[in-house]
Amino acid sequence: MSKKKFFFAAWLLLLSGTASAQNDDSVTIRKISNEIMAKGTAYENLRFLCKKVGPRLSGSPQAQKAVEATFQMLKEAGADTVYLQPCMVPHWIRGEKEQGYIQMANGTKYPLKLCALGNSEGTGKKGLNASIIEVRNFEELDRLGAAVIKGKVVFFNFPMNPIHINSFWAYRESGAYRTRGPARAAKYGAIGVMVRSLASNLDDFPHTGTTLYNDSFPKIPAVAISTNDAEWLSRQLMRKMVTTVYLRTTCTMLPDVPSFNVVGEIRGSEIPDEIITVGGHLDSWDLAEGAQDDGAGCVQSIEVIRAYKATGLKPKRTIRAVMFMNEENGGRGGDKYLELAKEKKEKHIFALESDAGGFTPRGFGLDMPEEKRQKVMSWKNLFYPYGVYDLSGGGGGSDIGPLKQIGAALAGLNPDTQRYFDLHHAATDTFEAVSKRELHLGAVNMTALIYLVDKYGL
Amino acid sequence: MSKKKFFFAAWLLLLSGTASAQNDDSVTIRKISNEIMAKGTAYENLRFLCKKVGPRLSGSPQAQKAVEATFQMLKEAGADTVYLQPCMVPHWIRGEKEQGYIQMANGTKYPLKLCALGNSEGTGKKGLNASIIEVRNFEELDRLGAAVIKGKVVFFNFPMNPIHINSFWAYRESGAYRTRGPARAAKYGAIGVMVRSLASNLDDFPHTGTTLYNDSFPKIPAVAISTNDAEWLSRQLMRKMVTTVYLRTTCTMLPDVPSFNVVGEIRGSEIPDEIITVGGHLDSWDLAEGAQDDGAGCVQSIEVIRAYKATGLKPKRTIRAVMFMNEENGGRGGDKYLELAKEKKEKHIFALESDAGGFTPRGFGLDMPEEKRQKVMSWKNLFYPYGVYDLSGGGGGSDIGPLKQIGAALAGLNPDTQRYFDLHHAATDTFEAVSKRELHLGAVNMTALIYLVDKYGL
Repeated sequence: MSKKKFFFAAWLLLLSGTASAQNDDSVTIRKISNEIMAKGTAYENLRFLCKKVGPRLSGSPQAQKAVEATFQMLKEAGADTVYLQPCMVPHWIRGEKEQGYIQMANGTKYPLKLCALGNSEGTGKKGLNASIIEVRNFEELDRLGAAVIKGKVVFFNFPMNPIHINSFWAYRESGAYRTRGPARAAKYGAIGVMVRSLASNLDDFPHTGTTLYNDSFPKIPAVAISTNDAEWLSRQLMRKMVTTVYLRTTCTMLPDVPSFNVVGEIRGSEIPDEIITVGGHLDSWDLAEGAQDDGAGCVQSIEVIRAYKATGLKPKRTIRAVMFMNEENGGRGGDKYLELAKEKKEKHIFALESDAGGFTPRGFGLDMPEEKRQKVMSWKNLFYPYGVYDLSGGGGGSDIGPLKQIGAALAGLNPDTQRYFDLHHAATDTFEAVSKRELHLGAVNMTALIYLVDKYGL
Repeated sequence: MSKKKFFFAAWLLLLSGTASAQNDDSVTIRKISNEIMAKGTAYENLRFLCKKVGPRLSGSPQAQKAVEATFQMLKEAGADTVYLQPCMVPHWIRGEKEQGYIQMANGTKYPLKLCALGNSEGTGKKGLNASIIEVRNFEELDRLGAAVIKGKVVFFNFPMNPIHINSFWAYRESGAYRTRGPARAAKYGAIGVMVRSLASNLDDFPHTGTTLYNDSFPKIPAVAISTNDAEWLSRQLMRKMVTTVYLRTTCTMLPDVPSFNVVGEIRGSEIPDEIITVGGHLDSWDLAEGAQDDGAGCVQSIEVIRAYKATGLKPKRTIRAVMFMNEENGGRGGDKYLELAKEKKEKHIFALESDAGGFTPRGFGLDMPEEKRQKVMSWKNLFYPYGVYDLSGGGGGSDIGPLKQIGAALAGLNPDTQRYFDLHHAATDTFEAVSKRELHLGAVNMTALIYLVDKYGL
């Protein structure tokens, strides 16, 4: 055989090897998909989490109930071992139902649909009265400065920009007004902040979410108002119909309390010391059932474990489903997970998070060195029949983010983003807003990716 | 310049020409997208169609109201001319609210959530009483034959298979029991048929839809029962807890009545005789607001016209948005459209239908000769930023299907299919089940495809 012929033959062999490996893999993934689409329990687990446990803010009794419930779900899914990782979490409470109204120039009062921002300080029981200054963006805030802002309530009215096809881009833009707005307004002497809800639709539901104070300035009360109210208020201000706003919130940050991550494991059959993590976050905001954010990611991660067991697949490496605590207002669960991994000198090769809703999957965002990314990209065709085609974006997730420090390759499930910000952090994030088939299809793709990473390494 | 060099240079030129054309096109499509995502009126038009017009079965007063409403919408969208195409349509009426219950062996009655199938004949005012035979599929029906079937009500209990990722495949499989089941059961002397609703979820809503009788056999009454009832009934039958079923439907087919397709046109600036059609169907089942099926397709088609006008784009060819009448139980609007096209010797180069819901778009199905398909495929990257990546499937739509006879290339918008059959033909197909962003994103891709076909021909 000539050298040329030899290489050609070797190349053919390699090619057919690759082709037949991909064929085996497509058969296995079909098996995984059939199992999950026909017999998946993620949807019923989510129903329990939403309807029997309910909103589960860090430190709340429901968060503890969610720990116990998912512990049980992981056992039922067939995890070899299920255990808790204790961690301290912030304990913010909303207090009494928020009140607020606009005092109109004609003497009437217009009640606002509002909620306190997460981690914010309250007005106190007496509430506050002040005139309002509407601000379109930070440039305008800085231009107005203390001369205009001092003693007022700043109303940040920055809508989510509908032209972004990926609605997370719009969230990132307008999100700054919720996270940094109160601190930046405090710098100029504002005594309170109202933020237009970060919502892609117009409705009557306020959307909560964390705000971050700056220790150099006072921690002023901060609320979100519904998008309908924001539109209305802006019109009234333009027409000079508004006198003042009254706001009353009794939320406050209490001392940290103990809580847990919940972990369910299938021990690797060949390389048990190499760990693959799949997770979502168990805590949710207190206004919502936390169905899409992020009950979905939790029950999908549990489904990965169940699918392995139900199909009889045996992973080479250790697969861990992790319900991270406290993503919403502290990220302590993710930090603790890293801390323990370091302590035990664990080898984390890969972590996958689902925290963008249980909507129909479209892709995975990859956060890993180019060589590893190329390896994942080479599996692209295997996902295509299941709706995942886009591996181009960056990715990961807040809870698994810390694992990057110890060299883990990261990925995030990227579902369709069109509906997420209609309900994100609002009372409309309910079980009913989740499609069983979409949720389960996400779990199919997650299991497929975990399966491939486990089989071929990364 | 050597010949080789010349060809290389020419190729480079060609390549850069293509690249810059694609660049121009991507700028134009971005402009279309921004217009529709920020200022689209499809969603508000759909609200009107669902909430002010409501269910609009062919021949109903609401169908006529929908004709008038969309006529007006097309004018407001800026169509150069808006006109009606008269056509006769079947006039099936549901009659009084259907009644039905299961007579249990223990003497109790279990009321069924049921609805008559479209185009079916009623039981008459007295209703019918009969014992039930559950049948899993046509093979079983044929095996049982007249000996067992005669005088009974056949209960076809064929669930939609959840393992199909594209839920239309499951619909095709189980759809046969609704469309052909009653006729095939009548052949063996059945006196009525109950079909498990064609639904991908378990709930209490019956899903209607057309059944097709066979003139050789009696037209026996036929109803759909909810999937929850189908599951329940199957269990009770297995436990021998059921005596008989009572069914009462007063639906019937009346003589044809006049109705219309609604057409809005932008006249082509260069080749006005070449026609590009974009459409959906205006009629809906009488149980539903017909939001996803197919109010969505109608308002998206109107949006194509609006987007052209709002962005100042001038098509070379004539663009027609068509609201087809009577897709659900006759297809007469589509037939009439072809008939008139033939009569006027129109040249139809392309037609696009949106009749799979206003869900987030994933692709176009193409039904055209290979050469044209390749041309459309060459535009693939232009759609990618807007969620359309799959041009692999077959396509078209029932209303535009007839145009194939006169050589039109056909395409159908393929949105995500996961949620469609939860609500298809049921009372749950409401405006609230439609996402504004998903609906508008579909219109973006439809306009982009029409724009490219118009610009480059097909």
